[in-house]
Amino acid sequence: MKRFTSLIARGLIVSCQARRADAMYGSRFMAQMAAAAEQGGAVAIRADGHEDITAIRDQTSLPIIGITKNYYPSSAVYITPTFADAAEAVTAGAHGVAIDATPRVRPGGAKLDTLIDRIHVELDVPVMADVSNLDEGLHAERLGADAIATTLAGYVSECPPPAGPDLGLVRDLAQSLQVPVVAEGRYQTPAHAAAALKLGAYAVVVGSAITRPHVIVERFVSAIKRRTG
Amino acid sequence: MKRFTSLIARGLIVSCQARRADAMYGSRFMAQMAAAAEQGGAVAIRADGHEDITAIRDQTSLPIIGITKNYYPSSAVYITPTFADAAEAVTAGAHGVAIDATPRVRPGGAKLDTLIDRIHVELDVPVMADVSNLDEGLHAERLGADAIATTLAGYVSECPPPAGPDLGLVRDLAQSLQVPVVAEGRYQTPAHAAAALKLGAYAVVVGSAITRPHVIVERFVSAIKRRTG
Repeated sequence: MKRFTSLIARGLIVSCQARRADAMYGSRFMAQMAAAAEQGGAVAIRADGHEDITAIRDQTSLPIIGITKNYYPSSAVYITPTFADAAEAVTAGAHGVAIDATPRVRPGGAKLDTLIDRIHVELDVPVMADVSNLDEGLHAERLGADAIATTLAGYVSECPPPAGPDLGLVRDLAQSLQVPVVAEGRYQTPAHAAAALKLGAYAVVVGSAITRPHVIVERFVSAIKRRTG
Repeated sequence: MKRFTSLIARGLIVSCQARRADAMYGSRFMAQMAAAAEQGGAVAIRADGHEDITAIRDQTSLPIIGITKNYYPSSAVYITPTFADAAEAVTAGAHGVAIDATPRVRPGGAKLDTLIDRIHVELDVPVMADVSNLDEGLHAERLGADAIATTLAGYVSECPPPAGPDLGLVRDLAQSLQVPVVAEGRYQTPAHAAAALKLGAYAVVVGSAITRPHVIVERFVSAIKRRTG
């Protein structure tokens, strides 16, 4: 199995995901977004689902961290909850898999340690563990995760997430872990991304600020409205 | 003929233009970018060329400021240099036309005053004059331009343009003109856009920072590289 750091260079990972209501929804758009990311110097792509991953694999030569978002009624875990979800991403062409690594109940009672082991043994790809806090990061590393990402910070409580990224978690993880730390979640500006690297992140994932143009437009519009009343 | 301010509300105009080498090149991508701009709350689209304008008109209900970029060997003017170029944009579906309004020689010796008059009389749409300095803005207003845009500030000398937008020109134009001032050119952040409105701009045009994802990626990558050396 390839090591995470052999697969993915230090730098910017671009998340190419659209929601069904987005004007840019669809794998042909996501594939071109990934091609644009490659043109601009990204080191990897994060993508969701068989169709998008396949299209992106056809269109770029960048490594893909795949996820399968799957919503089960029995569980709040939706980022690659089960081994079948992980296998789907790898079958589609993902070079690594990101999974929810919070302690929340998984569908069908699947266990995190078993999931990580099976991805390593049966799919032969590294695992990036999406966590929400330091303890989850330490735990996922002990279970064998190859990289820890801050993706879920701010998204596991009932409260709305803060506006900015959780740079404190990046710093805490980087000080405590041996495996690479990936900053992800609400990174909206180049300054945010640079700050994460400065605090010890190996890479940073940026999504909406690059690949969801209507979200970028909303930010401009909202700044203008604050000014014009 | 519709007044500029009846056609276009105060706010954000999104320029949807890709270059041939861009991953996102092509009218189907530009049309979806325009749809995303509409989703995000833009008040208008700026677009180049018959194919893109037609596709955008099909995909959104926003007003379109059309241009035809046309490179003539005899002239440095390339933003809608001639009446035929203006007519092409309007025939494609543009609701207004932006033209180069610098004093530089136009192809075939065409004159700015005649061009503005013919667009008004024969095409029945308002004219946005793209200028590079205050004098050009005052002159274009006298010739009947319906709005003045700072689009060409920094692009008429031999020197490379500065990194940021020319907010001083926005302020000077807004203090001197009766017609609306449109801020355009290197507006990269919501803060830039808000600053232009504060200085008296009626609207601000943002392009690359929204609709050219590889340019956004380059900005993130460059910030990260400055940090990691």
